[in-house]
Amino acid sequence: MISANSPRDLDALFARRAFEFDHANPILADLPKENNETISLAYGDADPRLFPIKELIASVGGLLHENTDAVLNYAPSDRALTELVATRLQRRGVAVDPQNILITYGSSQILGLLPQIMLNQGDIVIVEGPTFLGGIEYFVTQGATIETVPVGTQGMDIDALEETLKRLAGRGTQAKFIYTIPTHHNPTGTMMPLENRKRLLALASTYGVLVLEDDAYGDLDFRGEMAASLLTLPGSEWVLHIGTFSKILAPGVRMAWAYGPTAVMQRLRKFKSDQGAGPFITRLVSFIAQDGWLDNHIRYLNAEYAHKYEVMRDAMATHFPVDVQVSTPGGGFFVYGYLPQDMPARALIDVAIAHGVSFLPGTVGYANGGGTHEMRLAFSFQSEANIVDGIARLGKAMHAYRAQQ
Amino acid sequence: MISANSPRDLDALFARRAFEFDHANPILADLPKENNETISLAYGDADPRLFPIKELIASVGGLLHENTDAVLNYAPSDRALTELVATRLQRRGVAVDPQNILITYGSSQILGLLPQIMLNQGDIVIVEGPTFLGGIEYFVTQGATIETVPVGTQGMDIDALEETLKRLAGRGTQAKFIYTIPTHHNPTGTMMPLENRKRLLALASTYGVLVLEDDAYGDLDFRGEMAASLLTLPGSEWVLHIGTFSKILAPGVRMAWAYGPTAVMQRLRKFKSDQGAGPFITRLVSFIAQDGWLDNHIRYLNAEYAHKYEVMRDAMATHFPVDVQVSTPGGGFFVYGYLPQDMPARALIDVAIAHGVSFLPGTVGYANGGGTHEMRLAFSFQSEANIVDGIARLGKAMHAYRAQQ
Repeated sequence: MISANSPRDLDALFARRAFEFDHANPILADLPKENNETISLAYGDADPRLFPIKELIASVGGLLHENTDAVLNYAPSDRALTELVATRLQRRGVAVDPQNILITYGSSQILGLLPQIMLNQGDIVIVEGPTFLGGIEYFVTQGATIETVPVGTQGMDIDALEETLKRLAGRGTQAKFIYTIPTHHNPTGTMMPLENRKRLLALASTYGVLVLEDDAYGDLDFRGEMAASLLTLPGSEWVLHIGTFSKILAPGVRMAWAYGPTAVMQRLRKFKSDQGAGPFITRLVSFIAQDGWLDNHIRYLNAEYAHKYEVMRDAMATHFPVDVQVSTPGGGFFVYGYLPQDMPARALIDVAIAHGVSFLPGTVGYANGGGTHEMRLAFSFQSEANIVDGIARLGKAMHAYRAQQ
Repeated sequence: MISANSPRDLDALFARRAFEFDHANPILADLPKENNETISLAYGDADPRLFPIKELIASVGGLLHENTDAVLNYAPSDRALTELVATRLQRRGVAVDPQNILITYGSSQILGLLPQIMLNQGDIVIVEGPTFLGGIEYFVTQGATIETVPVGTQGMDIDALEETLKRLAGRGTQAKFIYTIPTHHNPTGTMMPLENRKRLLALASTYGVLVLEDDAYGDLDFRGEMAASLLTLPGSEWVLHIGTFSKILAPGVRMAWAYGPTAVMQRLRKFKSDQGAGPFITRLVSFIAQDGWLDNHIRYLNAEYAHKYEVMRDAMATHFPVDVQVSTPGGGFFVYGYLPQDMPARALIDVAIAHGVSFLPGTVGYANGGGTHEMRLAFSFQSEANIVDGIARLGKAMHAYRAQQ
């Protein structure tokens, strides 16, 4: 005997929460359609010529001869990697509790999990406009209502943030978290000044909002300087900090870390549900990083990326129309461009691709509209020769677009 | 102005679902406390002497010289690994839609995620008694109410399953999924006969319950034979199949796969939230597996593990009291022991550890009690010399325990 209400339909078996994460993100339609002829300046891939191939191969040899059982058997995530992250945070002045460090499969794992533990359907997340499109994508597909705070020449506009928080409080509601990239911001390349970082945290404390500090480019400073992490400032108990080995080692190893309040970290661990990052891949990263190698490598990367930026800067000065304005980043992977009124990015991108070059239209960095006359140019991936060639093509495309009008 | 209801407490910011996964699993207290002198027969670790160290090192060298960008940059999970899994499933007679293959960081990632997408608080999961303790742990901590169906000499007792399904239906409720390890069952080493597999799926279809087929030991058959996966039988549309590279390559690489209905796979992907398994680690597995190497390696492993089992079997025949009964597995990692009435496992384990050997008490495999006179012995991890020594110690412990009474 079967009860009348027992389902024969698989869909009837799912948990309520399984139906909560099904929200389309409408902004990805603007991504440029590249082809084999395109010199892509759109995406912030790392430069594969800077990957430490020799050292990675040597490290795998070293770690597999070291303690095979700890690396290849059922074993916890490598403790040395947690210690490495703790040491690096301590060096920046963070009073680290290693218990609250979580090693993750890429920082995007946290961008995906945080909304799962924070958001009921429709809850508010504050993001910068523009911001990392991956962040928006994760938050929106998991049910966030996005509030956008503009980014000026000094990162997030803190006055506008305060107005937003006040407005939400006035409506009897509030944001669950604020997503910010204060250092070498993606996509604008701006740096939030210390004073603004302090104000940001004071507001977070006052209004009771978590701050998600995405420090993806924290180590990538052309002059080798480290900005003050939000973790070192008053109000740090409201900060979830994420950092990554993607830019300073290689994105493909998918290793990153998160550090924040116990209540957040415990829940992230639960939803992560993968028994922690595996022993082989975590030991690979800690093995290659040891004895100061990683610090030397970061210095090397910063010199190389600084040079690539200068190559792009000089090429833009030569090839772009004078009324195209560009940012002057002190680190990171990106130049941000502000196009003149007669040159919307969405129309320009078609002409650019016809000229064999692509960029990321600014619109994809805005959850609530905006950026129609903005563009992101990545100097990270292409060779210097291709950067020069790509910018020359893009300059030609800009002039050609104008001539067509 | 801040609204009176705006929280200053981090806990007030979490989503409702963040409070749902906080259930203690009471059965882990029975895990043996080992020390440096203990020959552990408790855990199903792989034999580190069988790890293909040389080939792993050569593969890393090969893949990093092959297409660095595809392996170390931002890149999708390696397609060749999905194809490898598809080919292996096809060879077993599964009509594979590669879209529904998900590569995961260990099969435990699926054991953790499936309850997230299937269970509302208190929903019922049917497990075998005994079963893999990790499965129980994941299900219980995520709010499952567990129903146990006994395992006999032929795997899950299908008559008892039918009674359970009927009883639940009679109460107007039902299970969300049935967790089974039909092939070289953990911990009992039993094999579910084809006829019972068919009955299991017929019941799943009739009662509308998902079947989670954990095929962790599917490839590990001492005679190299493959049992019929539930995916090849009528009613397979109710099956979520998981397999792993942990036993046939190395647990520490944390690579596994899941295959099942589109509706399940789509939701697992969403909750997985890590952008897919990374390109480096996925390419490492597909690289080493190519050109038939994996098939040869599995044949090698089966010969080695079969021999280790025989060593344990012969040692048990020599050293155990005659009234201790043991299973005769045809594959997998475990022997299961049935202890006489005067020898409860929980009391025996203390004497065993005092004699320098450990086993897993049967109780940890039961969610709802049971297994007081059962024990799991893993022949997978220890060397042959240690297996002989460990079983001799255990035999001594058994005789000593009896002498004390």
